[in-house]
Amino acid sequence: MRVLIVNGPNLNLLGERQPEIYGAQSFEEFLQELREKFRGIQIAYYQSNVEGELINALHAARLNQDAVILNAGGYTHTSVALGDAVAAISIPVVEVHISNILAREEFRHKSFISQHAAGIISGFGLIGYELALNYLERRPNGRQ
Amino acid sequence: MRVLIVNGPNLNLLGERQPEIYGAQSFEEFLQELREKFRGIQIAYYQSNVEGELINALHAARLNQDAVILNAGGYTHTSVALGDAVAAISIPVVEVHISNILAREEFRHKSFISQHAAGIISGFGLIGYELALNYLERRPNGRQ
Amino acid sequence: MRVLIVNGPNLNLLGERQPEIYGAQSFEEFLQELREKFRGIQIAYYQSNVEGELINALHAARLNQDAVILNAGGYTHTSVALGDAVAAISIPVVEVHISNILAREEFRHKSFISQHAAGIISGFGLIGYELALNYLERRPNGRQ
Amino acid sequence: MRVLIVNGPNLNLLGERQPEIYGAQSFEEFLQELREKFRGIQIAYYQSNVEGELINALHAARLNQDAVILNAGGYTHTSVALGDAVAAISIPVVEVHISNILAREEFRHKSFISQHAAGIISGFGLIGYELALNYLERRPNGRQ
Amino acid sequence: MRVLIVNGPNLNLLGERQPEIYGAQSFEEFLQELREKFRGIQIAYYQSNVEGELINALHAARLNQDAVILNAGGYTHTSVALGDAVAAISIPVVEVHISNILAREEFRHKSFISQHAAGIISGFGLIGYELALNYLERRPNGRQ
Amino acid sequence: MRVLIVNGPNLNLLGERQPEIYGAQSFEEFLQELREKFRGIQIAYYQSNVEGELINALHAARLNQDAVILNAGGYTHTSVALGDAVAAISIPVVEVHISNILAREEFRHKSFISQHAAGIISGFGLIGYELALNYLERRPNGRQ
Amino acid sequence: MRVLIVNGPNLNLLGERQPEIYGAQSFEEFLQELREKFRGIQIAYYQSNVEGELINALHAARLNQDAVILNAGGYTHTSVALGDAVAAISIPVVEVHISNILAREEFRHKSFISQHAAGIISGFGLIGYELALNYLERRPNGRQ
Amino acid sequence: MRVLIVNGPNLNLLGERQPEIYGAQSFEEFLQELREKFRGIQIAYYQSNVEGELINALHAARLNQDAVILNAGGYTHTSVALGDAVAAISIPVVEVHISNILAREEFRHKSFISQHAAGIISGFGLIGYELALNYLERRPNGRQ
Amino acid sequence: MRVLIVNGPNLNLLGERQPEIYGAQSFEEFLQELREKFRGIQIAYYQSNVEGELINALHAARLNQDAVILNAGGYTHTSVALGDAVAAISIPVVEVHISNILAREEFRHKSFISQHAAGIISGFGLIGYELALNYLERRPNGRQ
Amino acid sequence: MRVLIVNGPNLNLLGERQPEIYGAQSFEEFLQELREKFRGIQIAYYQSNVEGELINALHAARLNQDAVILNAGGYTHTSVALGDAVAAISIPVVEVHISNILAREEFRHKSFISQHAAGIISGFGLIGYELALNYLERRPNGRQ
Amino acid sequence: MRVLIVNGPNLNLLGERQPEIYGAQSFEEFLQELREKFRGIQIAYYQSNVEGELINALHAARLNQDAVILNAGGYTHTSVALGDAVAAISIPVVEVHISNILAREEFRHKSFISQHAAGIISGFGLIGYELALNYLERRPNGRQ
Amino acid sequence: MRVLIVNGPNLNLLGERQPEIYGAQSFEEFLQELREKFRGIQIAYYQSNVEGELINALHAARLNQDAVILNAGGYTHTSVALGDAVAAISIPVVEVHISNILAREEFRHKSFISQHAAGIISGFGLIGYELALNYLERRPNGRQ
Repeated sequence: MRVLIVNGPNLNLLGERQPEIYGAQSFEEFLQELREKFRGIQIAYYQSNVEGELINALHAARLNQDAVILNAGGYTHTSVALGDAVAAISIPVVEVHISNILAREEFRHKSFISQHAAGIISGFGLIGYELALNYLERRPNGRQ
Repeated sequence: MRVLIVNGPNLNLLGERQPEIYGAQSFEEFLQELREKFRGIQIAYYQSNVEGELINALHAARLNQDAVILNAGGYTHTSVALGDAVAAISIPVVEVHISNILAREEFRHKSFISQHAAGIISGFGLIGYELALNYLERRPNGRQ
Repeated sequence: MRVLIVNGPNLNLLGERQPEIYGAQSFEEFLQELREKFRGIQIAYYQSNVEGELINALHAARLNQDAVILNAGGYTHTSVALGDAVAAISIPVVEVHISNILAREEFRHKSFISQHAAGIISGFGLIGYELALNYLERRPNGRQ
Repeated sequence: MRVLIVNGPNLNLLGERQPEIYGAQSFEEFLQELREKFRGIQIAYYQSNVEGELINALHAARLNQDAVILNAGGYTHTSVALGDAVAAISIPVVEVHISNILAREEFRHKSFISQHAAGIISGFGLIGYELALNYLERRPNGRQ
Repeated sequence: MRVLIVNGPNLNLLGERQPEIYGAQSFEEFLQELREKFRGIQIAYYQSNVEGELINALHAARLNQDAVILNAGGYTHTSVALGDAVAAISIPVVEVHISNILAREEFRHKSFISQHAAGIISGFGLIGYELALNYLERRPNGRQ
Repeated sequence: MRVLIVNGPNLNLLGERQPEIYGAQSFEEFLQELREKFRGIQIAYYQSNVEGELINALHAARLNQDAVILNAGGYTHTSVALGDAVAAISIPVVEVHISNILAREEFRHKSFISQHAAGIISGFGLIGYELALNYLERRPNGRQ
Repeated sequence: MRVLIVNGPNLNLLGERQPEIYGAQSFEEFLQELREKFRGIQIAYYQSNVEGELINALHAARLNQDAVILNAGGYTHTSVALGDAVAAISIPVVEVHISNILAREEFRHKSFISQHAAGIISGFGLIGYELALNYLERRPNGRQ
Repeated sequence: MRVLIVNGPNLNLLGERQPEIYGAQSFEEFLQELREKFRGIQIAYYQSNVEGELINALHAARLNQDAVILNAGGYTHTSVALGDAVAAISIPVVEVHISNILAREEFRHKSFISQHAAGIISGFGLIGYELALNYLERRPNGRQ
Repeated sequence: MRVLIVNGPNLNLLGERQPEIYGAQSFEEFLQELREKFRGIQIAYYQSNVEGELINALHAARLNQDAVILNAGGYTHTSVALGDAVAAISIPVVEVHISNILAREEFRHKSFISQHAAGIISGFGLIGYELALNYLERRPNGRQ
Repeated sequence: MRVLIVNGPNLNLLGERQPEIYGAQSFEEFLQELREKFRGIQIAYYQSNVEGELINALHAARLNQDAVILNAGGYTHTSVALGDAVAAISIPVVEVHISNILAREEFRHKSFISQHAAGIISGFGLIGYELALNYLERRPNGRQ
Repeated sequence: MRVLIVNGPNLNLLGERQPEIYGAQSFEEFLQELREKFRGIQIAYYQSNVEGELINALHAARLNQDAVILNAGGYTHTSVALGDAVAAISIPVVEVHISNILAREEFRHKSFISQHAAGIISGFGLIGYELALNYLERRPNGRQ
Repeated sequence: MRVLIVNGPNLNLLGERQPEIYGAQSFEEFLQELREKFRGIQIAYYQSNVEGELINALHAARLNQDAVILNAGGYTHTSVALGDAVAAISIPVVEVHISNILAREEFRHKSFISQHAAGIISGFGLIGYELALNYLERRPNGRQ
């Protein structure tokens, strides 16, 4: 199985910013661990701060990936276009958030992605990405 | 580790209602499977349709469980009291929903539980309970 | 035909409270009259002030009743869980209100039950229950 | 007893439009049946697509009818003027809707008529008119 | 000066309905008094319950009247079309209401007519029409 | 008859500000004209920019005036306290506005005074004060 | 192909009102031009200021027209009944507005007709009617 | 005088939870003190986490108590049914909250109980119950 | 202990207005009684209808009083400035209302003072001031 | 005449996605047809999923195009910046949508572009682009 | 150049309240520094807690000042009257806030003054007043 | 001190668009002047119409700049992601707007940046950038 992890705006700063909260580990190091844990899955990774490039990545994934794990960061709450992109591709998309978006500011309670995602995992820190992979390994056939 | 799974209103009908969608498996049968998969965890189970009894179960759990997996069903969206109960106990509570509440009616987008939960897993069917256990096995010390 | 009448919170006070308005007749006495008028229907009756017990009653009815007449009182306007219970059972549920909920406070204009009910009868006093039975006698086959 | 049934906009199409749903029976044919069933009631009928003509009909009814059964169709949700007309006449007005307005679009949840109606019957198809007549036969003296 | 008084829905019932409140005087009788008081003004009168006929009356007035006094009744609060008609004619339109619309239900606080009216007089009973004529006699040249 | 005209904030600038719109006449000069026109009425005048002093003036008026004409300017839309003062005194209060408040910004559409005023006259420029006096001369006994 | 153009309230004033903006051409003159340009289409025309008569016209059109071009003017934004009429007929209805309703007041941003129309053309002046005919000539079979 | 204190959801945890804030005193110990201070009052106590059982307690109190002190916890903000129960009984009900609900989250600013309560005391910790008893000792006859 | 009672707009009319409701007792007479009951407390009193003077009084109190009892009347619901003044002083402020603000009009449900007050007592008539003094006598050290 | 067609996010997938609905034709093929039909117009084409690049394209167009046809896809409903860009250029911009945005989800009813566009064409599928060109050929001089 | 600095409610407490945050410097001391830095500007100062006196000060300033720097404190968010006063005077008014009002409670996000101010400076502490003077020294002729 | 000025969408058109309003000066020319005035500050400049590139610029600035002056144009009101980027970097960010955003359309009153900015300067034209530099020169140590 091939899975693309797509991280959105500001997630490139993981590991550098507020290490006492997020740990000193960059996402690239964490990715290394993930690949070791999930040897049966070919994990690709893409990060961009540009909304349209995230859409491009989703479009590309529909041709050469089996699933996407998407943490769209701040675009989650405002991007109709990104939600449309998730709707437009037929492979399953798992929505992940590091913090619990329903426990933060009101404007983070809305997700334009959830409507079209297989499901949402929010609030478990980086472990959320592991859970998404657990799900993809385990899920029944067909897009849920 | 001792974990209590708490299911709220209407979840007692799983397996009987609309089997072509939810499968013919009752939650009790599924529980059997869970216990076999997660042998290191002592899994207790409680279901009630009564809001106050769910609160009672959470209160009791704070004394004799290490964590709770809570699917509060329809009370998720309306119960300040249940949210207060989650806030009042110090063990971690993982919020699980079988369907994706952010992809359903507007009134299901609000959760009084999320504010105080370790995180939320929504939309993955019964597999969501497995992911919650994956998290509890894996999570760092202390309440996240 | 077997029909269960389910009355929700505060409806146990009928006949005792404000008799100049509601009459001195308790619901039990009224029930007696109903049974005499509708001899072809086996009328069962259940009242509870507990939301979850009303859900239990609806669950039970799906196995041994042909229809339900439901006056959920104050829970009508707030209970997602009760609405889900009506949706979960396949027998027809007729929603009845003694007063006209659309002519009272704003917060009584919303019903979580209507979405899944066969129809609503509101504002005709106790006669509303009779009209519900008139409908059940007269209605075409299949759940409307 | 003299009762006027008033039907509002688009209800003249009953029987012609979507017969697989509404049946092939026009309201005029249904009216024939009603008159046979309720021989003790003199049933008059008026239909118009013009809001102001419905108001005229209500005004006229206050002088020569004992009650009105009003299905104001789409004007139910938008017409302050029609609601004022119901308030202005002293005979009882029963509000009827063929479909369940509380189970349809948000903008159909509001009724300017309910505030002043004896009660509302909604969602039972054409049977709703029968129930309204059942009520008028049975109701206590005085405008409820 | 030629002035047309236009009364909207339900205002034809004045004098017949609730005489202890509104007096036993019909609008026609009151009109007689107005004409005697304001001998320098040629007062025409039109009443209809039909929204579109009120629009027709306003259109006609732009050619053969110097001003309009408009009490649009319930259409005041809902009719974009009537407001557009007031905007479309170049003679001054004085908005009058018998009761004080800002002191009644929330839905009567909005007026689609005020935006384009010379001014509004509300709450003074039938005297409001007199005040409107006082204004038209007294007002400076040009549409205010 | 003794009538107090009360003008609120910024109305002291009349005649100095934007004379091409409001005319070069100060309110004091206009008052002179009013007193000449309405010789049967003893007209007192009070202006203040301080909300509480307007309340004081209303309190005093209840003892030594027969009616009040109140243009509360910007406080109209925000002052619960001023509305309470109008409610607390038993003499009639006529609400006047120089411009048409329902045709200006949204926040000027609400009046805390209207609820308790005899009526509102809005949009007729200074002539509005004359109309208020016309009304007070003409109005039936008792507070309307 | 037979097409009915239906114009709603105030559109009878075209050509008379504000000719510097709308031109000195009446809709009847413009219609003449349209008929010359679209010789393959039999263009009928109906205008009324009465909401219910517009509904009548739509009902009639379903029997003897192939399509409708509807500019409902101010009723666009308020008429549930007119929207229901569009939904009730099976021929395609093209919604046209002379001005751009999404660029005007907030209350003109809502259309009860769009939900059931083939599409909307708004803001192009009278040319919008031409575009609607272009579409009807060009559109694929079946109601879009 | 007989007074029933009714405590709602989560209030059974007082004294165990966050003792640095709420003190190490359970409500039962505090009750002991209250009874000593108010020897002229017979104080009964009831606590439940179940909404419907709180309603039952209120119903029972109307027959054998002179007043109720009600802290409905989280149900305060969501329970139409509990508010209806307070309205249904004729003895005075004093609403008490330990924390100041108007100084907490927005969703705690609404109370379905206040509408029908004698008054509200909020924010004074356990002393609020004392103040409620002070009031009941001191209040004039008749339900305020 | 020195306590300042601050009364806001319209409260100077107590005893004169509607004596059948509020009694014939002025606040000054009531104050006399209060001082006799609470001999251990030095009670100062200030009333003004001017918002800014109430702020001045609060500022002064922080230097020479131990606590304030504040009934800000209509300013309670609209005055950010008064709320800021309560926040700016370090002595405890008890908010009192004679009527139950949560049981009156919607616009009285909001308090800018509660956020910073020790607590609120609302709906108990003049007895509310006594309860506030009961609290101040009884309260634990430090600002609650 | 030189016209630039600008397509926004996800519109690059036309022809590949859901061909049973949108047809098997890519936008490039359709463009070929357009150019053949409108030989008098030089049609340029630009597509991007990046909001800022669409802004860049609009900026460039103001120097070397006579008009723009803009389908901004999901950015239509959220992009203040894109709306500002349309406002900033002086050539006419025609807004086109393939589906009828007023007949879809609530969040698609708002357009930041309409405010500044010459007009909107929505719901006619790819034919909408043709209608836009029809308009540009036909429109009067000057920006409408 | 003559500039009046106007400070609104609670700003007289600067330097006394929370010195660890606001510093131990009173506004009068700070004013001294300002006057030394801006020797070319004649700086007058006025502070009041009374809304109407702030209006008086603005009125007076229009005759004898060249510009105003206004920090209206809590009245910023609620005072239509103060906003009207800023609109009524023709000299430039610079709006200053010590804290960043857009980063505080929702009710502080609205300013009735901004609509008519030359500009707003918010969040820079006392330095904001310096920036306002920088602007006034530097600004082009005419009211911006 | 090194300061980066970041300008967002459409600000590249300064000097070309509407020179009678904004002047004929491009931002680059203005920048020249700024650098001459503030010789002690090393001023870098970046402009992009792409939201994500603005985020990239902010990320880069945290490593090699001492402060940022950010005018995010239309993204100010819609970009959660940009607000998160400001929150993520530890150097002070001053928010500048050329026009007064609180005096324009409602949708420009909200800023996702203000929450995390040192302060906001809005409405002073290009001078706003100077004021921002004045602040940065003058501000106390540490991020305000």
